[in-house]
Amino acid sequence: PSGTMAQLIALRIWCDRKKQPHFAMHATSHLALHEQNAYEHLHNLKALFLGDAKKCLTLRDFESAPVGFAEELSAALIELPQRELGGVLPTWPDLVAMSEYCRSRDVKFHLDGARLWETAPHYQRSYAEICSLFDSVYVSFYKGLGGITGAVLAGPTDFIAEAKIWQRRYGGNLYRLFPYVISAREALKLRLPKMNAYHEKAVEIALALSSIDGLNIEPSQPVTNMMHLTFAKPASEVETAFIQFAKENNVAGFFRLQPADDGVSCKAELNVGDATLDLPTANILQMFESVLKKS
Amino acid sequence: PSGTMAQLIALRIWCDRKKQPHFAMHATSHLALHEQNAYEHLHNLKALFLGDAKKCLTLRDFESAPVGFAEELSAALIELPQRELGGVLPTWPDLVAMSEYCRSRDVKFHLDGARLWETAPHYQRSYAEICSLFDSVYVSFYKGLGGITGAVLAGPTDFIAEAKIWQRRYGGNLYRLFPYVISAREALKLRLPKMNAYHEKAVEIALALSSIDGLNIEPSQPVTNMMHLTFAKPASEVETAFIQFAKENNVAGFFRLQPADDGVSCKAELNVGDATLDLPTANILQMFESVLKKS
Repeated sequence: PSGTMAQLIALRIWCDRKKQPHFAMHATSHLALHEQNAYEHLHNLKALFLGDAKKCLTLRDFESAPVGFAEELSAALIELPQRELGGVLPTWPDLVAMSEYCRSRDVKFHLDGARLWETAPHYQRSYAEICSLFDSVYVSFYKGLGGITGAVLAGPTDFIAEAKIWQRRYGGNLYRLFPYVISAREALKLRLPKMNAYHEKAVEIALALSSIDGLNIEPSQPVTNMMHLTFAKPASEVETAFIQFAKENNVAGFFRLQPADDGVSCKAELNVGDATLDLPTANILQMFESVLKKS
Repeated sequence: PSGTMAQLIALRIWCDRKKQPHFAMHATSHLALHEQNAYEHLHNLKALFLGDAKKCLTLRDFESAPVGFAEELSAALIELPQRELGGVLPTWPDLVAMSEYCRSRDVKFHLDGARLWETAPHYQRSYAEICSLFDSVYVSFYKGLGGITGAVLAGPTDFIAEAKIWQRRYGGNLYRLFPYVISAREALKLRLPKMNAYHEKAVEIALALSSIDGLNIEPSQPVTNMMHLTFAKPASEVETAFIQFAKENNVAGFFRLQPADDGVSCKAELNVGDATLDLPTANILQMFESVLKKS
């Protein structure tokens, strides 16, 4: 039922099959940041980190790995888009090249598709075509789609048969799943057709906000419905200003801002969904201008 | 969110703390029968089996274990009631004695309380008093209570803090749990007060059915709301008779009967819940008489 479980199961199967406990991922992967090193504690797997923590993974990161790297690797995990970097994506040719690199070296290519639905506007390709580059795929039903909760793991028949055994070992086969299944179906129907609109709105918002001093947008032109914002003021001040704006205008901005590494500025993630889509970009611009002026 | 996960986490914590991978359980425990040996594959834990597979666990089973048994044991898991044996329970003094045996030997006493709610009519004690015998407790919200799905793990504060880390490793902290939480609360409100009535009805049904030839009831006097029934005919015949009865009388009996070990008879589990409570015992007797006559 969860992405954490789905991806650990996928990696465990691929590593068991090659009898090699190593898999590769980016330093900002969900497995590296948010899962209490479960891959090690539950499965005795070993992670090899690829690429620059501040940049999107590319073929060059694979090619510049040490000699023997691919040989001892069972699987490589790629997140599309990379959430911690503001939703960036490799180019299509680079993604194809990474897939070919892995497959030609007997390294399974696994997709962390937590936000896969949000990539279609950029790649302008079907989900089937995107997924055909991978040996196993995880997708989520609650992030961009807005379902209650839930995830799916996809792969070859024999892989799924093994995954079901692991799902039982995890206690992941809940007795009834219907609340999640029903909402996932509804979410697909309601929100998949809106992915282009979410993306266009994100680009429009980024353009509008780019005029504001003291606000940095990453990436400056969003490739999905997401961007990361850095405010050149401390979290407490920006937060107070957002709360005041919310009270006066009945429109909420950000509340749990993350202090940035530099100690003076702070960060937030902006995801465009239905609520943002319904809000005129001029109003959004006005909110940010007001907040940065007052804070 | 699931009992499988909750219990594996509890055992892992207790075994890590004592630095001993061994835990004890009965041969019919859920961990032994229904979890694909997850305790071994996910946690490298070792199971020691206690007691007679066909009998309820007692203090004698602990006492007759080999020398050194308790010393190398981190935890013992007891299921109340023992589902695979038709819902049997140790006597209260014996349960207290097992708890004391474990605690005096630094063995954590864990309760598999999948059907704990159903034990109160027999013990005539509060759930708090029953649970006070244990170091950690798992309970379920969907079995006797009829919630959608869901489980809770309870224990000391530091134990729960560790359990939360494991829950994240498992991917068990689902993004939203409200469908299960709401239904669990409702189920507690609706069905906990009926546990006595379920038990009384089960005793009444067992007494009524005891007059039927070719039907064995285990235990003959139910101690919870559950009993196991063995029909002295093959599964296919009994099933056909149940389906025919259902069509004619609009009351459903059993459909997925398990072939028994002897190869000629078959088994079913009867759990008394709201539907059975509403059905007159005379009608239930009539259904079984008709089925055994026709099959």
